Formats: sequence, structure tokens, C-alpha cells
Amino acid sequence: MVFNINNFFDDRNKKSKIADFQDLDHLDGVSISTVSANLYDQKRDDLVLFYFRNGASYASVYTQSKIVSENIKWNKKINSKKLSALLINTRNANALTGSDGFIAIKELAKELSNQLTEKQKLDEELPKEINSNEILFACTGTIGEKFPFNKIKNAIPNLINNIKYTQNKIIWMKAAMGIITTDTKPKLAMSECKIGSASIKIYGIAKGSGMIYPNMATTLGFVFTDASLSSSVLQKTLNESIKSTFNAISCDGDTSTNDMVSFFSTNKANNPIIKDFKDSKLKHFRQALKEVLLNLAKRVAGDGEGASKFISIKCKNAKTEEDAKSVCFSIANSPLVKTAIAGEDPNWGRIAMAIGKSKANIDVKKLSINIGPFNVLVKGNLSQHYDEKIVSEYMQNELLDISVDIGLGKKDFTAYTMDLTKKYIEINADYRS
Amino acid sequence: MVFNINNFFDDRNKKSKIADFQDLDHLDGVSISTVSANLYDQKRDDLVLFYFRNGASYASVYTQSKIVSENIKWNKKINSKKLSALLINTRNANALTGSDGFIAIKELAKELSNQLTEKQKLDEELPKEINSNEILFACTGTIGEKFPFNKIKNAIPNLINNIKYTQNKIIWMKAAMGIITTDTKPKLAMSECKIGSASIKIYGIAKGSGMIYPNMATTLGFVFTDASLSSSVLQKTLNESIKSTFNAISCDGDTSTNDMVSFFSTNKANNPIIKDFKDSKLKHFRQALKEVLLNLAKRVAGDGEGASKFISIKCKNAKTEEDAKSVCFSIANSPLVKTAIAGEDPNWGRIAMAIGKSKANIDVKKLSINIGPFNVLVKGNLSQHYDEKIVSEYMQNELLDISVDIGLGKKDFTAYTMDLTKKYIEINADYRS
Repeated sequence: MVFNINNFFDDRNKKSKIADFQDLDHLDGVSISTVSANLYDQKRDDLVLFYFRNGASYASVYTQSKIVSENIKWNKKINSKKLSALLINTRNANALTGSDGFIAIKELAKELSNQLTEKQKLDEELPKEINSNEILFACTGTIGEKFPFNKIKNAIPNLINNIKYTQNKIIWMKAAMGIITTDTKPKLAMSECKIGSASIKIYGIAKGSGMIYPNMATTLGFVFTDASLSSSVLQKTLNESIKSTFNAISCDGDTSTNDMVSFFSTNKANNPIIKDFKDSKLKHFRQALKEVLLNLAKRVAGDGEGASKFISIKCKNAKTEEDAKSVCFSIANSPLVKTAIAGEDPNWGRIAMAIGKSKANIDVKKLSINIGPFNVLVKGNLSQHYDEKIVSEYMQNELLDISVDIGLGKKDFTAYTMDLTKKYIEINADYRS
Repeated sequence: MVFNINNFFDDRNKKSKIADFQDLDHLDGVSISTVSANLYDQKRDDLVLFYFRNGASYASVYTQSKIVSENIKWNKKINSKKLSALLINTRNANALTGSDGFIAIKELAKELSNQLTEKQKLDEELPKEINSNEILFACTGTIGEKFPFNKIKNAIPNLINNIKYTQNKIIWMKAAMGIITTDTKPKLAMSECKIGSASIKIYGIAKGSGMIYPNMATTLGFVFTDASLSSSVLQKTLNESIKSTFNAISCDGDTSTNDMVSFFSTNKANNPIIKDFKDSKLKHFRQALKEVLLNLAKRVAGDGEGASKFISIKCKNAKTEEDAKSVCFSIANSPLVKTAIAGEDPNWGRIAMAIGKSKANIDVKKLSINIGPFNVLVKGNLSQHYDEKIVSEYMQNELLDISVDIGLGKKDFTAYTMDLTKKYIEINADYRS
């Protein structure tokens, strides 16, 4: 598949509420470069560099899979408080590539830090040296294939030549398109807020379309802010927001070896320095971050492989949040529920089946199920007002809500997913990212 | 879909090793009746009665879903050591049908036991009275729809008129076809063995094609023997065998509200009465029962909705059996693995992904993966002999083996599943059983 920056607005985007793009603009301290290292048979951008010329504070969350990619091992190992760059490649996940895969990342970090040091020497105001442990890596693509070290290494000069110090919506869009694999759309989101009297920007991009099921972090997400914040505050705000955003989506119940969401601050905004995560001045910022992450997470779920519908699943009044989450994901991951939705069939018995097989405490006499605004099951009995024809009509919408009331407690959770269509099979029966 | 007894041998059956049918014959003490109660729009048999005129000992295992159907509530409630009949209906699961659904079962039990009592009066050698708590029920079909009580009740006289005291392969086949829903094939299996010097028969039928993921019992299975055995011995032999047979299959990771496997003995064979499950005279019987259950379970997995391939997944040398099972089912339930197999793509990275997301202890350096007879990953490294082309050719087979060696212990488990094809979506996007 060849990606063309001019045709990413397909018909579905135009009518979908979640697919309207926000225009990202300049964010001080972030520089971007996007090139092709010929990792695909057909030419497309496959390497994206984020360069922080004055460094950036950062925080990350990673996949909880027991098999993690070599770049994630590297990211967990480097022990630098500030970062100088983030390099993302597609086509190859660098997972189960053995020690070769790790050595490749180490060599790329060395090469990239050396060449960036050379570049910084030209500007007296910049730090004189970049260390290789200031480079973060994200890889996405096929697992187990030899990592294309040489192709990526040879593309570094071009990558550095191409660095844009001033961003605009086109450059952000190119970066968002440079990191996608089977995604049908780039994913971008932004929000603005105040910390004290300083205006703060939060910009983010993400990729993800398959192998998506939350387990701490899911898929790739990169969020940038100009706020002056310590790594510790970044980590806490990220941890706080990830639970109800990236960790609330599922496309197929499959968890990748490469998932990561990273959050960078360039510290260029003139906000008062905040050291305590609970500082009331952070309130709007935390809200804005959650907005950006939720927006990106919904775009990932909405673009799930072969998706024709976006589904929000809310579980209310569970005994524990764990129960609420278990019910949401048991529904979100059920092939029978997802195919019924693809067929626009209000076969709510399958929703009940998924609730029954979840790990949650259930008392059927207290259980209620709504599809959209319509009562289906009310405390264990079919609603007197249930009219299959009306609910069938509702099922024809592109955005659907399923709501389950457990009636045993006060805990809620909302998960996001898509339907399961023939196109999912088409994409995955012969896909190599 | 209309089922025709003459065309159940499709092309795939002819070439598939697991689809060759065994011919079931007369089993003393079991009588069978199969009729249509017009539960479907198109005429097909949808009610099957097994009648034990001298009673039968029995044992059952049921779904572990927290939402169970009304007939299963009934089955768990009746407290009779011997059974007189088993009635199976398709089209309607009688789940989430509220108290109406339970009352319907109770009324059907009364009606059926009354009419069978009338019938027994004609034969002096038979017990004079059948109690309503001697009737077991199995229901399968759509969840949450009103239970068709009247249609079933009105069909009882015809059902009783139709009872065949002597079975042959055609009658068993009709029974096996009378209980299926989206299945493309009836499922029958048999074995014979000795207890002491007595010849013993074990005959079984099953249904199941979707909503199949083991949780104590999965799908519907009914196994009959003429051996003289107590209910307690039946229960123990059933529990022993179910773990590696019906509880080792998964089609889609979805667990039904109606799953049950029941085991009946008519006590007509002249074997010495056995009261201890561990009696060495039971050895061959236990083996034969496992054979029948595994044969039926494999037929269910092999006939998984839309299946084009049957896959055995073995996990070896895990620390615990729980770990081995978790790895097997993480692979068996992964849509990405199942679609890769449908596409005959040896994308083994997806198998690794599924292992990584399982709950098992994993040390990548000790992990090996085989596809068929071919080494893919050997102790964490891609095999030197791995040749994607050769493995691709292997993937074209209809019967595939995946083997994972964890290298951390001595426990094994084998699970059975099928691939995920467009046909699964087709069947489920607008299926009402």
C-alpha cells in the first residue's frame, strides 16, 4: 500500500465524528524529520526522527508482554534524565531478533548521537555533545524478521539533513503517516491549556490498527508538550491518563511486543516549575493530556483493522473497577459480539454471553443492558419496551454505545473497540507489516 | 439452512482425517426419537429425545459461565439418581428467558414424564411411573429470545410415537443432525472395550461450531454406554476425560451459557459392578471414553464456524499445567494467529506474540517454536535451518501442528482449534441459530 498525503481523507473520515483532524502547529523545542529508508517494497516514509535540540524531559509506559522487542529493552536500559531524540521505524518490529537486534539499536544510537553532535557543533547555543543513551527508539512491523540495520544506518545522513526546526500541520501529518503500518489513517490530536498564566501546547501522534489490547501501554503513541515539567511529573500524569485512554481500547485482544507510549516536554514554555504532581496548577494540564490521549486512543480503536463501526462499551455499578473492566473487555474482545455488530444485528444474547464469561461478579436479577438509548434487559428481564426493529435501525449507525449496569456496586469503566468484518480477515490473512 | 441426511459428506469430509464417520449401532437400553417442532422457518428436525426405558445412571459437567440457561438450572436442581429421558431442542437457548423459561422446562418435564408413564403402562416389565425429575434438558440456539414452549409441548405426542427401540446408524445420524445449529456436519463417535469379560459400547454425539471455549464443559455432548456403572463412577470418569478433550478445544474464545456434556449408562451390559473409579478393570473403559470424547471434541473444533484448517497446539515443558494451557489457548484464541493460518502464512512472530501475552512464565532464551516438523525458533534464536518457503508449503495442509517448548518445567497441554476465515464473519454477522 502506498500512502499519499493528499488522499488520507477518505469518505469515512468525512462523516465520522472522531476522524476530523486537528491541525498541529509549531511546538517549540521539537524538530521533526521524516524520510524513506526503503524498508518497504513500495516507496513510503518509514523513518521518523523527533529531535530535541535542547533536550527533553520524558516518561514512557511499555507493553506488559513477556516477550518484548529489542528497542524496548534498550529504552528500559538507558538511564538518562533528558533525551535528545526519538527514532521510529516501521516495517520491522525488532522483536525476537536476538542479540543482533539489540546490537543494531546500540549502533544506531551511537551513529545518530555522533551525527547529531556534529550538527550541534554548528550552533554555539546548543549543548556540545549528545550521548547515545539520549536516544529513544520505537519499532513497529513484523516480529521475528532480521532487523534492517544497514538500510536504517545508511538513511541517517538524509534523516539529519531533513530536520525541520519549525513545524506546521503538513510536517506533523508526514510524521504521523511515517509511523503507520496497516492503519488506514494517520492519527493526530492536540489540546491547549494554561499552567499558571503560561499557555501550554500538548500535541500527539499515534499508530495502531491490529494486535491491539491494552496491557499498560498499547500500540505506539508519542505526545509532546512545551511545558516545563520534570520527568517524574511527566511519568505520573502519563500513568494517570493511560488507564482510561490507551489502556481502554481493544481491537482484537492481541497484545504487541512493541507497545509504547512516550511523553516528552521541551520545557520551553514559561510556566512556573512544578515539582508536585498534585499541584493544583496542573489540573487543566492533566485534563488536557487525558483529552489528547483519549482522542488518539479512540482514533486507534476506530481505525481497527477492517473496522466499519466504532463502539463505546460502558460498564456501570460494578463491585470493583477490575470487574467493570473485565465486563467491558469480555464484550470488546468477543468475536461473536463484534461480528453481530458488523452485521447490524441486535443479537444482545451475545452481549449477555460475554458478560457471563467475564471474571466479574454477576447477579442476573440485577443485570441491565442498553444498546444505545434503548433498554434491552432490565434487571434480568427483557424490557417491556424492547422493539428489535427499532434497535436494528440504531445498529446501522457508525458510532454505537453499549451500556451494562451490573447493579452490585459503584465502579465504572468504559472501553472502546470496533466491529469484526471480513476486511479484518483480508488484511490479516496475508499481511506482513 | 436445510439439513439433508444424504449430503452431509461434503468434499472436505472425504479428505479430512477427522471427518470419517464411525457407524453407531444398537445400544441396549437407549431409545431415540427425532422430530420437527417447527422451531425453524425451514423444516428440519429440532427435537431429539433419548429415552431410557429402564432408567440410566448419569453424570454431567456444565458451563462455568455466570449466566446459565434455564434448562441448566433445572438439570442442576433435579435430584434423581436415575434418568428416564434427555430432551434436546435447538433454535432457542432458553437463556435469559427469566422465570418463564424455567417454568416452561418444568412444564415440559411434567408433560413428558406423564406421557412416558402412559407409554410404560403398556409394558409390564417396565417401571410403572416416571417422575418429572427424571428428565434432563439440553437447549441450544439464540440467547434471550422467548422460549417456544407451546411448539415443543405440542410436539411431544409425535416425539413419543416416533420412539425407536432399536437403533442403527441412520437413527443415530438423525439424532446427531437433530441437535446441530450452525454446524456443517453431524458429530458422532464410538468405541468398544471390555470390562472384565463383558463387551462394552461407548457411543457419543455432539454439537458445536461457535461460542466455543472450554470452561469445564463446552458445547453439547452426549455419551452413552451399556456398562453397569454407578453415577459416581460415571462422574469421575467424565471429569477425568473432559480436561484433555472438550476442555481442550476453542473456536472463538466465547463461552456459551448452555454448555453441557452428559454421560449415561443403561447398565445393560453384564460386567461386574464396579464401585471404585480406580478399579483396574476400568482401565480400558476410561481409555475408550477418552477416545470417544476426544474424537467428538476434535470434530467440534474441526467444524468451527468457517474453518478451513484444523490446528493442534502443543505446549511442552511448562512450569505448570496452567502455564501450558495458558500458552495453548493464547495461541488458539489469537485472531492474528488464526488469520495468518487462514492465509497459509508462516508468520510465526504472531505465535510468539501470543506466547508473550499469555499468563505463563516465559524465558525467551529457553523458548522454542516448531511449525509442523520444522524448527522455527530454537532457544530464542531463529533456527539456522528455517526456510520460510518450506514452512509455507507445509501451511497448505488441512491439518496443522504448532508446538511450543517453554523449557522451564515438565508440564504439557494440547489444545485444538481452527483458523479464522471470512466465512466465520459471514456466518456470524447475520446468524440467528
